[in-house]
Amino acid sequence: MATEQQQFQLLEEDELSVKLIDAQYALKDTRGQKNAKSLVVLVNGIELAGKGEAVKQLREWVDPRYLRVKADRPQPLIETQTFWQPYARFIPAEGQIMVLFGNWYTDLLSTAMHVTSPMDESMFDDYVEHMRAFEQDLKNNHVDVVKVWFDLSWKSLQKRLDDIDPSEMHWHRLHGLDWRSRKQYDAIQRLRQRFSKDWVIIDGEDETQRDQQFAQTILAALEHCPEHPNKGSKKWQQAAIPEALHQPSREQADQATYKDELKKLTRQVANAMRMDRRNVVIVFEGMDAAGKGGAIKRIVKKLDPREYEIHTIGAPEKYELRRPYLWRFWTKLQPEDKIIIFDRSWYGRVLVERIEGFASTAEWQRAYDEINRFEYDLSQAQTVIIKFWLTISKEEQAERFKAREQTPHKRFKITDEDWRNRDRWEDYLQAAVDMFECTSTKVAPWHVIATDDKNSARLEIMKTILKQLGGA
Amino acid sequence: MATEQQQFQLLEEDELSVKLIDAQYALKDTRGQKNAKSLVVLVNGIELAGKGEAVKQLREWVDPRYLRVKADRPQPLIETQTFWQPYARFIPAEGQIMVLFGNWYTDLLSTAMHVTSPMDESMFDDYVEHMRAFEQDLKNNHVDVVKVWFDLSWKSLQKRLDDIDPSEMHWHRLHGLDWRSRKQYDAIQRLRQRFSKDWVIIDGEDETQRDQQFAQTILAALEHCPEHPNKGSKKWQQAAIPEALHQPSREQADQATYKDELKKLTRQVANAMRMDRRNVVIVFEGMDAAGKGGAIKRIVKKLDPREYEIHTIGAPEKYELRRPYLWRFWTKLQPEDKIIIFDRSWYGRVLVERIEGFASTAEWQRAYDEINRFEYDLSQAQTVIIKFWLTISKEEQAERFKAREQTPHKRFKITDEDWRNRDRWEDYLQAAVDMFECTSTKVAPWHVIATDDKNSARLEIMKTILKQLGGA
Repeated sequence: MATEQQQFQLLEEDELSVKLIDAQYALKDTRGQKNAKSLVVLVNGIELAGKGEAVKQLREWVDPRYLRVKADRPQPLIETQTFWQPYARFIPAEGQIMVLFGNWYTDLLSTAMHVTSPMDESMFDDYVEHMRAFEQDLKNNHVDVVKVWFDLSWKSLQKRLDDIDPSEMHWHRLHGLDWRSRKQYDAIQRLRQRFSKDWVIIDGEDETQRDQQFAQTILAALEHCPEHPNKGSKKWQQAAIPEALHQPSREQADQATYKDELKKLTRQVANAMRMDRRNVVIVFEGMDAAGKGGAIKRIVKKLDPREYEIHTIGAPEKYELRRPYLWRFWTKLQPEDKIIIFDRSWYGRVLVERIEGFASTAEWQRAYDEINRFEYDLSQAQTVIIKFWLTISKEEQAERFKAREQTPHKRFKITDEDWRNRDRWEDYLQAAVDMFECTSTKVAPWHVIATDDKNSARLEIMKTILKQLGGA
Repeated sequence: MATEQQQFQLLEEDELSVKLIDAQYALKDTRGQKNAKSLVVLVNGIELAGKGEAVKQLREWVDPRYLRVKADRPQPLIETQTFWQPYARFIPAEGQIMVLFGNWYTDLLSTAMHVTSPMDESMFDDYVEHMRAFEQDLKNNHVDVVKVWFDLSWKSLQKRLDDIDPSEMHWHRLHGLDWRSRKQYDAIQRLRQRFSKDWVIIDGEDETQRDQQFAQTILAALEHCPEHPNKGSKKWQQAAIPEALHQPSREQADQATYKDELKKLTRQVANAMRMDRRNVVIVFEGMDAAGKGGAIKRIVKKLDPREYEIHTIGAPEKYELRRPYLWRFWTKLQPEDKIIIFDRSWYGRVLVERIEGFASTAEWQRAYDEINRFEYDLSQAQTVIIKFWLTISKEEQAERFKAREQTPHKRFKITDEDWRNRDRWEDYLQAAVDMFECTSTKVAPWHVIATDDKNSARLEIMKTILKQLGGA
């Protein structure tokens, strides 16, 4: 964090206020435009450096209807949730400003400073690196991030502690930190030096300077709303489509033993998921009519509905479109949900949205890495991710489409859109193989299942889950 | 719960499925229409009666994209949160269906059956009565509620416990209940007899009957979408406007002592709110330019932003309009938030929405009772509610409007709309006094503050808060 302290001029308060309000309104007006954005402000720093006062002063200068402040006490980072999970739902929609006073850095520092089990430096650096990557993903998805560190010298801090009203004292024992301890002060200063270089450092010594510098930092961020790039990479190279996807296996399960085997596997899978100490996320993607619904039905057969959640993903709602693409999945993944199944998923970005042009080339090409980071974070937070691509031959699909059309209660499953998608068969295959190429990671590999024979497909899915859970 | 078991005919599975899907689509199409509604299904009953199977079967008959199932383990009712708080965010938007497998009744039964401190019957009845009233409010606000009890005889339950796979056993120890205990079985049956009479009871004995009766119950609810009444009550009587509102006091605070007194009160108020074991909700309503913002600024002056949250309420967003009017406030009130201040509030329903016709007569007239129940529930959940109406003379308002227009950084605070509102001065006064009349309750009385002299108004607000917190 070696940034030079920003140079700035004090403005007349009224002038600053007018500028801030104008900038807020301009930000609101970006909604739905090519330069749409929202702003997240992460506020951190030394106790008594005046973070609270600066935020309150900002609130008085702006139109408070369009500035939300979310202030939480630090929660130590825990093994079973990603650092962004507690904050995902506060990520603002385009046009909005959210001040997160209490954020992933507060949690990180609180954890790192833990008296009995402090974090080692390489782990700290690793977190900082992941946080920076997450913020870059936010920025690429129209959420600008400004990080502000309110600093205060040791001497001034001690002076302020001397002067403080005893009734306010308990605030300054937050994080379990003792601000009278020089050792702790130095430790926290050493740690924040390891932050990335894109922090704005505000000296809390002088009130007026402090409030102005903070407000002007926000102002500068608000006023910077460039158009989003939408060109793809020139280096983009499509993967080759393997023959097995053109002509998926039609190998048939043994009819004689199928029922018994499925029954046994269903029970084993239910137990393996239930007993695993980790959360389980299962993702189904695939060609229309490839049997996603039927597979899911078997997976949950021996589970009680209180043990799992199924998300059937369709087109995003308007309020979801105003946020980063992954936002609606971030907020669906709660650490307390043990087993979650996605009938279609975040991979929509690189499948239907790529093919139909709902995402720009830059957006879908960027999405592979975003998704990999997302899945990596989940995997680090004690979550197994099992991803299936169900593949089918074009002939078999035609037969199933026709059968659906002739079955009244299945008719809703088949629309003109499905026939249109079928016309883009090759595009979907291409998108699928590019997806395998880019997102088959160590923590979350793809499993391609041929489903022309539904029975063998179901057995294979069950066996794959067992294997991934280490149970077979 | 003396309802007769519903008579019904078994339908062909395919026919039932088609009907359900058609009804789902019809429900979706009600969005924004005069018969708009959503559906909440509360699923409860005896363990092993087949709740889970029936829900799973329903999911297979319908279009699963438009049926969400939220299944939670029971959480005992706790003193510091209302029974609806854990579920408020799952209340579906118009056109949607939500099955709450795990809901306020699950929590109530779990609490009532608590082994070491069972709930007495009058308290149980009281809860049931409040739940019924809450559900009625949901229904009036376009959220239909269907309550289903899956029943099973003692004998069948024991038989099923004999046959169960041991790995599934832990589900049936939920609520800390022992389903092998006849005494507990009888106790739960006695309790559920005390539920209101609008439950559908499904006999879990026969699987086919059970699944069909459940699905047909949902079907009937989906198919019943009458237009919402919007006529007001003939009995509605306006309250008289007291002279003090036409000519608010202009009594001035003592300039010599004002600053010191305010400083002292600011500190006292901060400490009183901080130290109160209850949560504190402060509501500001009043005429434009009556000084809500200035008052709030003083209340939070000695607090750290981590100690409070301010909600500045404007027009609802689209996704909020598709839910009960109070929904956006239910979801803003989290038990963990210690101090919450509303700059405008849920009273918009009976103020601006009444006057501008955004709410129908039936809607705003009904809102008084809905709000009273809402505030009563909060007060029972350890929350103090302090409500201020800031009143101002018409002349003083005109002066402040003009001053705002001439101050660049205050210009955003004054729009044509404010001048239009001013033209409806009498309507606002009438709406205000009707509001005092109907919503000044024992747990949440209104405090009317004359603000022509801002200083005396601020002192009075501070003193009122102290008094309400029992600190003066």
